[in-house]
Amino acid sequence: MKQAKVRLYVEQGLGEGQTIPLTKEQAHYLFGVMRMAVGDPVLVFNGRDGEWRCAVTVANKRNGELVCEAQTKPLQMPPDLWLCFAPIKKARTDFIVEKAAEMGAARIVPVSTDFTNSERIRQDRLQAHAVEAAEQCGGTYVPEVSDLVKLDRLLAEWPEGRQLMFCDEAEVGSAKRLAASTGGPWAILIGPEGGFSDAERARLKALPFAHVVSLGPRILRADTAAVAAMTLWQQSLGDWQ
Amino acid sequence: MKQAKVRLYVEQGLGEGQTIPLTKEQAHYLFGVMRMAVGDPVLVFNGRDGEWRCAVTVANKRNGELVCEAQTKPLQMPPDLWLCFAPIKKARTDFIVEKAAEMGAARIVPVSTDFTNSERIRQDRLQAHAVEAAEQCGGTYVPEVSDLVKLDRLLAEWPEGRQLMFCDEAEVGSAKRLAASTGGPWAILIGPEGGFSDAERARLKALPFAHVVSLGPRILRADTAAVAAMTLWQQSLGDWQ
Repeated sequence: MKQAKVRLYVEQGLGEGQTIPLTKEQAHYLFGVMRMAVGDPVLVFNGRDGEWRCAVTVANKRNGELVCEAQTKPLQMPPDLWLCFAPIKKARTDFIVEKAAEMGAARIVPVSTDFTNSERIRQDRLQAHAVEAAEQCGGTYVPEVSDLVKLDRLLAEWPEGRQLMFCDEAEVGSAKRLAASTGGPWAILIGPEGGFSDAERARLKALPFAHVVSLGPRILRADTAAVAAMTLWQQSLGDWQ
Repeated sequence: MKQAKVRLYVEQGLGEGQTIPLTKEQAHYLFGVMRMAVGDPVLVFNGRDGEWRCAVTVANKRNGELVCEAQTKPLQMPPDLWLCFAPIKKARTDFIVEKAAEMGAARIVPVSTDFTNSERIRQDRLQAHAVEAAEQCGGTYVPEVSDLVKLDRLLAEWPEGRQLMFCDEAEVGSAKRLAASTGGPWAILIGPEGGFSDAERARLKALPFAHVVSLGPRILRADTAAVAAMTLWQQSLGDWQ
């Protein structure tokens, strides 16, 4: 059987014999860029019904259609981990969203803090990055990117029972490790360049559900810290176990 | 005492009372970009003598001078860890070098493999990225970026006693964890997009010093994989312990 060269996220429901109309952009990508033709296989997922092997049944420049043949993977939900981060420069914010999807965050939450430089994000663009990362990494789930929320409000509305792993620049070189005892829902919080303000730090440390964790003896950039923190969490409590 | 706003890597030896002539680029950065003046403090390191607090003694547009006042950190060598990786697209290669320096690699080795796209690297540019990352992350050591080497040759000349952590896309979803028993010199090897060839994989797996490690159930991009693998290693065997 021919190997699928493309993995595509779609909105529609997936099931045996189901037809999937393609958008103009999808048709352009499959038939214009990737030069695919009728009969070629495509892997498709929608974040709900697992991954399906489909075949191209209509291949035009501006539209097209796939038909679902067989499920190739069941839906695999990531663990209930949020990645909360303070947006930084555009390219690095894009990277953090991409990395969060690859590393298996269930939700991505941009947070505005006292030292956050950017006061706006383009939620739709960041969501598109998360989709692309899910297509690339073989996951069957796409994390939702939230709208920018102020740290105060995020903490005021914090869901009961969710633990918080708080990676603080001020802990550089300390030996604070993630204690691997508490399962259930979690969030990781990564600060902006320049770290958290003293007031924020005091508030965060006083939270009963907060766990302060050190990321080694060097100061990591926010995108590096996000991957490192998710690695520690996934290995201790998540789906790398 | 005024807080130093700049952390600078220099080539010269550092010691109490030592004067440090600045290059044209350094003078431009300190006095043109950062608007510093005579008397202002600068943190300086050279990879050998730790970190020193210096004061500006000459501040011109095209040249300048610092004087070392006091040591602020001793030299802290990273663990003896090499990060070996197959260069990918330019921006991501730059990121891998930056991340390797932040995460505390002692040496960075670009490796050409069967599926490597780029056959050339700019060693001087990558080395400059490593210097910048060291300035930023507060380390007192700058990892050396080697010239591009073919995987065959790297393995043929492999130093006795150095262990190899081999992160293979084919192990996605397996439960192979880093066994935290073997200290001493190590290297991490990250493959290119598309992974290793069958021949390379067979050769790597047969090496007595190779340890195959899984990085979770999703396929990670090379730059994500580099940070994740270094996190696992630093936490188990390195200076995050």
